[in-house]
Amino acid sequence: MIFLRKPKVVVLGAGYGGLITTTRLQKLVSLDEAEITLVNKNDYHYETTWLHEASAGTLHHDRARYLIKDVINTNRVNFVQDTVVAINKEEKKVQLENGELEYDYLVISLGSNPETFGIQGLKEYAFGITNINSARLLREHIESEFAMYNNEEEKRDERLTIVVGGAGFTGIEFLGELGNRVPELCKEYDVDFKKVRIICVEAAPTALPGFDPALVEYAVNHLQAKGVEFMIGTAIKECTKTGIIVAKGEETEEIKANTVVWAAGVRGNSIVEEAGFENMRGRVKVDEFLRAPGHDDVFIIGDCSLVINPEIDRPYPPTAQIAMQQGETCAKNVAVAIRKQGQQAPFTADIKGSVASLGEDNAVGVVFGKKVVGKQASFMKKMIDNRALFMVGGPSLVMKKGKFKLI
Amino acid sequence: MIFLRKPKVVVLGAGYGGLITTTRLQKLVSLDEAEITLVNKNDYHYETTWLHEASAGTLHHDRARYLIKDVINTNRVNFVQDTVVAINKEEKKVQLENGELEYDYLVISLGSNPETFGIQGLKEYAFGITNINSARLLREHIESEFAMYNNEEEKRDERLTIVVGGAGFTGIEFLGELGNRVPELCKEYDVDFKKVRIICVEAAPTALPGFDPALVEYAVNHLQAKGVEFMIGTAIKECTKTGIIVAKGEETEEIKANTVVWAAGVRGNSIVEEAGFENMRGRVKVDEFLRAPGHDDVFIIGDCSLVINPEIDRPYPPTAQIAMQQGETCAKNVAVAIRKQGQQAPFTADIKGSVASLGEDNAVGVVFGKKVVGKQASFMKKMIDNRALFMVGGPSLVMKKGKFKLI
Repeated sequence: MIFLRKPKVVVLGAGYGGLITTTRLQKLVSLDEAEITLVNKNDYHYETTWLHEASAGTLHHDRARYLIKDVINTNRVNFVQDTVVAINKEEKKVQLENGELEYDYLVISLGSNPETFGIQGLKEYAFGITNINSARLLREHIESEFAMYNNEEEKRDERLTIVVGGAGFTGIEFLGELGNRVPELCKEYDVDFKKVRIICVEAAPTALPGFDPALVEYAVNHLQAKGVEFMIGTAIKECTKTGIIVAKGEETEEIKANTVVWAAGVRGNSIVEEAGFENMRGRVKVDEFLRAPGHDDVFIIGDCSLVINPEIDRPYPPTAQIAMQQGETCAKNVAVAIRKQGQQAPFTADIKGSVASLGEDNAVGVVFGKKVVGKQASFMKKMIDNRALFMVGGPSLVMKKGKFKLI
Repeated sequence: MIFLRKPKVVVLGAGYGGLITTTRLQKLVSLDEAEITLVNKNDYHYETTWLHEASAGTLHHDRARYLIKDVINTNRVNFVQDTVVAINKEEKKVQLENGELEYDYLVISLGSNPETFGIQGLKEYAFGITNINSARLLREHIESEFAMYNNEEEKRDERLTIVVGGAGFTGIEFLGELGNRVPELCKEYDVDFKKVRIICVEAAPTALPGFDPALVEYAVNHLQAKGVEFMIGTAIKECTKTGIIVAKGEETEEIKANTVVWAAGVRGNSIVEEAGFENMRGRVKVDEFLRAPGHDDVFIIGDCSLVINPEIDRPYPPTAQIAMQQGETCAKNVAVAIRKQGQQAPFTADIKGSVASLGEDNAVGVVFGKKVVGKQASFMKKMIDNRALFMVGGPSLVMKKGKFKLI
């Protein structure tokens, strides 16, 4: 059977979800069946879950990214390097910065935007752990502050104060890397370690909310031993050019700091909101087949989507694990839709666990329902990281970019 | 013969001159004969002539410094880590930031200060290639500008513009390193090399004044091929927060640049001026035995001293070569002075040559009266650098810090 006009499948975003969808689709669907286009801002994919390392400077950012053309079949998939500006779901068009694409089936996997909860000054003055650009900038910024310190007659200790907003997953993992990186910086720039302050401010009543309290305690103890100060149950009221203002109950305090990192949360994508899909903070509650309600031709996966965990009747947090699993289901369902035969497959999450790194040699988490800490957890974390590479690019990508401890 | 009170010799500064003086003195003079004290701001010596590499980021700054205690005999020499504030030549005292020292014989080898010729804004806004602190700051600053470039919606090309003020020895050597470093930075931060500008502004009518015109042409051609733009016969009128204003004849032009490096000259030391020695821009025209006129107990060497080259009846430029040769003579003369027997030895410079590096693999210069360029000159430059290490610390220091091309 030959189509006069092949259906057009457009995948927006080459993050975990989009890249799994594309690499699966290029195998599932033949050249005759559909025209597949992948759109991404950069010509590379980056490991969002490794950015805390690139941001601290403990892993080179090039280790955390790879070229998209190295993992897709360019004979099967058109790759368009461009930025998505808007989605017109009525006309079935995607507006790009430098062009326009028509689609019959759309996969939206555009990832998240940072969520600043309206806290004044965060957008202007705080650094983020968001992408390759922001990661290498943050690494560089911290290093320049150390470099500048001994170049001024009057030493300004705020150059050596780093505030991390948020003790969630990203915040804790970033602190773990800082704990290893800061002593190196002190040596590099002849700075007394005692002058450095690393402060973590968390509004919630605990670090790593959702983690087992014993694991939280383990993580906090480890980081405190590395010199991290925790201000738990403390909210950032404002971020200024010279630091932050925090509040605990009625009391407010100013902390002078030249580096403020906002690691306290993400929301969905503004493109999704502007396109008019029903959403909650940029996340669309998709149907069981991962489709936008009322739009059977639009699949939404990853951080832009919202899926309820039936066990606790709350949304799954946006993770790489979920995004990749959604990508597998999404590819199958797009193929079914193109062929107009077969059954759409429902998505079910299969949470294998969650491990938060505490630096090179330590981690805490739960894997297959079992609590792990220390070197064992750290090893598992590396295996989880390597698995993400394996799923997209097979063993050769693991060899190229994988994490193996050098002995 | 036993002194009731041993004469006190104080050496100020552990640069090329001071360190050669000290290492020679500790062998020449016995424990009974004198008490030797070396004062230096840092606990390390750095290779001033290698700072252009550390500043560009082509050589780690730790490769360009070593601990003073590793090259002096601490049984023979008291090392005081402190900053010289003032010299009181009448009371024969040196005031330090954290104390005071008395001397019977003083060696002033405090090096140079940058000379900005009263150009407005240079002190505030320009970077220098002056010491370890300024070198690692400059390296870091350039890198942060590249890191920032892709983090702004509106790209600001002035982040990628580097102005080097001065096409003298230091300016040219720094440009040579930048020529190699900038392509690396472009790759590191995904920056288009065509967006980068490296501009050298020189007020004199030629680059490398004093060098043979054929060598100057070779150097300029090499650097232009690496992307350096030269503005010769052009003066910097002002340095501002956003760049520089240059003038060529009547015309003025503003060049927007986030990095301005002032590499156009040094003067002697303000401490020497403030102490009331007769001086020309901080340099004291010493007698043939390297003593301050009218002060037989004060030796002045290195960049604080001024020695006339009889062949051209003009002062020798302040170089490491001269400073080290002065150190040898100075040590002998201090020993004579302590013993109050023997003859003061006159200083004669023995200029072996001068080679300006143009990066890892290229250089231009004159060695033993013979012009050299290219790989041969580059090899000689490395040998010159290694010789400075050898003279202070012998073969072990050369093995530790020497420059050998890795094949």
